[in-house]
Amino acid sequence: MAKRSIATLTTDFGTADPYVAAMKGVILTRSPHANIVDITHEVPPQDIVSGAFVLAQAAPHFPPETVHVVVVDPGVGTDRRIIAAKFGGQLFLVPDNGIITFVAEALPLEQMAVVVSAEFLPPDASLTFHGRDIFAPIASHLLNGLDIAKLGPVPSSYKMLEITAPELEDGQIVGQVVHVDRFGNLISNISSRSLAAAEGTVTVTCGGQDVGGIKPTYGMADPDTSLALINSMGYVEVAVNRGRACDRLSAGVGTEVRVVAR
Amino acid sequence: MAKRSIATLTTDFGTADPYVAAMKGVILTRSPHANIVDITHEVPPQDIVSGAFVLAQAAPHFPPETVHVVVVDPGVGTDRRIIAAKFGGQLFLVPDNGIITFVAEALPLEQMAVVVSAEFLPPDASLTFHGRDIFAPIASHLLNGLDIAKLGPVPSSYKMLEITAPELEDGQIVGQVVHVDRFGNLISNISSRSLAAAEGTVTVTCGGQDVGGIKPTYGMADPDTSLALINSMGYVEVAVNRGRACDRLSAGVGTEVRVVAR
Amino acid sequence: MAKRSIATLTTDFGTADPYVAAMKGVILTRSPHANIVDITHEVPPQDIVSGAFVLAQAAPHFPPETVHVVVVDPGVGTDRRIIAAKFGGQLFLVPDNGIITFVAEALPLEQMAVVVSAEFLPPDASLTFHGRDIFAPIASHLLNGLDIAKLGPVPSSYKMLEITAPELEDGQIVGQVVHVDRFGNLISNISSRSLAAAEGTVTVTCGGQDVGGIKPTYGMADPDTSLALINSMGYVEVAVNRGRACDRLSAGVGTEVRVVAR
Repeated sequence: MAKRSIATLTTDFGTADPYVAAMKGVILTRSPHANIVDITHEVPPQDIVSGAFVLAQAAPHFPPETVHVVVVDPGVGTDRRIIAAKFGGQLFLVPDNGIITFVAEALPLEQMAVVVSAEFLPPDASLTFHGRDIFAPIASHLLNGLDIAKLGPVPSSYKMLEITAPELEDGQIVGQVVHVDRFGNLISNISSRSLAAAEGTVTVTCGGQDVGGIKPTYGMADPDTSLALINSMGYVEVAVNRGRACDRLSAGVGTEVRVVAR
Repeated sequence: MAKRSIATLTTDFGTADPYVAAMKGVILTRSPHANIVDITHEVPPQDIVSGAFVLAQAAPHFPPETVHVVVVDPGVGTDRRIIAAKFGGQLFLVPDNGIITFVAEALPLEQMAVVVSAEFLPPDASLTFHGRDIFAPIASHLLNGLDIAKLGPVPSSYKMLEITAPELEDGQIVGQVVHVDRFGNLISNISSRSLAAAEGTVTVTCGGQDVGGIKPTYGMADPDTSLALINSMGYVEVAVNRGRACDRLSAGVGTEVRVVAR
Repeated sequence: MAKRSIATLTTDFGTADPYVAAMKGVILTRSPHANIVDITHEVPPQDIVSGAFVLAQAAPHFPPETVHVVVVDPGVGTDRRIIAAKFGGQLFLVPDNGIITFVAEALPLEQMAVVVSAEFLPPDASLTFHGRDIFAPIASHLLNGLDIAKLGPVPSSYKMLEITAPELEDGQIVGQVVHVDRFGNLISNISSRSLAAAEGTVTVTCGGQDVGGIKPTYGMADPDTSLALINSMGYVEVAVNRGRACDRLSAGVGTEVRVVAR
């Protein structure tokens, strides 16, 4: 049971309440060697899609055997399952509510267990704060070297979100905005792979507004001018150089993004 | 002088200004071994009640001998005292302004000192940033193994907030909302102990609005429906399943919460 | 190549997106021993002046050889340079856009390099997220003991912001507000040194409104009353005891602050 050193936390708890610190206290009590890193606690309350997106973009950059603990869990206290899994060398401990979707699409599944052992689901756990009473203790077991397989059996399936994938219409790729970041950049679900060799010869529209071809970076557009680019995560992003695309284009999550051959 | 390894910080500094990082820099300069954990820096400015609540809910989950440093300190630079204390195995370094109230109600007092030694109150300390110039250096002394008793004498008393405790009126328990969390949940000052065996046979009202009996968890109410439960910290909480109770019930800190026998 | 143990991060990324965690993952993958401390991620987007201010107030409190990584970088992907420097024993890795200004004014320059080696500027780096692809890997090299000089040659100059220094007009010192903190305190660019022996015999105005002489600390003014003081960083600050000066005086960044001999 070689110890693992890093745990990350992704929650919708915010940082004003005692919830995140309580989880860290529990983990450090049981795993004094742990290095706990926040991915984010600013997932909009109970927004599984947003949490899934941020998790998938951050987690792959951590060292192998990092334990990613995710508590965006509107079903806490109901019969929703908790699963632990290894994707691409990273460990994930999550409610089985679809929050693993984008990780599962990006990284190969290596191992999975559904938590069933009463040892890990204590009967005196709070029904409203599994983050502290169930996820944090299990995270410590994993940090202390426990094999995922000890948590329970391999599930026959796990929940995936039904996100509309980009569609092809008359040779146009039609997707949508799935995330708006702090800079007001509009990140779509159209991956660079789906564009293939089309780059440079396409025009992008966002909510029906033409934002031109795909440029290499923000500074290639005039200040306050909108542009499209392939962002650092490999997706088509609509931005405004030194401005906020979401405001300029009155766009947000769900706005249609279309890639049109010139 | 065995070293202590963990310090927590609870402040009203926010995270946009240089104040928190300056404190961490001072602590790490003097205690390179320290593991510094944020409880929160989002206490509303100078709101001692709110800081006291969050501190008391988070601190007990940390390992024994953790050093909890609290700087919510509207009296900085005046003659308010600084106290160090051990409650329930945890160390606290706080201004003597009542912020220790909920900790002191929950955990047994084991040791206390009022800081008086000039060694720990340097004459060249800033009058406006004791967090950096006094609390952080003392925290490092504690992390490096100093006994609380070396900071000064045992005080004859310390300040406690005068929070209205729940009252009994004609067999009804009448309390109030003391905290609204990020999810809009309304947390009252009515503890589960005060309900005793009454659970399941009571009705709860919040601001005069009936929210029904006490349910085990959020998911036991229909979506968008209000409910009452005993929360993970042992207090009566009024919530809305997948919604915000503070908005639905137009309630906030100070709103009356009443538990009525059916 | 003695290892360095602490890296700090100062960005305008916020904490809701995956960007900060991605940087931390990259650093920890290459420097497992690193202790990563957030200075702030709440620099207003692309606000170099604000980032420069917060950095300069926090960084000097860290242990020598701390690696301060700053990514407030509106020019990412253009030909703006990246520089590494040692000021006052602290290391800084920053875009050459003026964000080092207040550090350079406060601490002695000991060493500087402009990053030019292709080893550190990989051709496959994203054009939009140098924080993850360039700054974080270089930070790890520095944490692992690399000498700054290995990054590239000493530049002949580096960019400094043109901030209007306080001026003398008829014996009055005329400066301006450069930062408003979480408490609404108005921090000016008038240093205590420039006041010299004048303290106690001057009157301060802010936006033309008289706030009286310089007091030792907040509590020396009546509650809700405005005052001036020398803050913990050595600058003239206009505040309201237990209130928000920015609201009370309708003042903000750029508002004139004037120190007048009585």
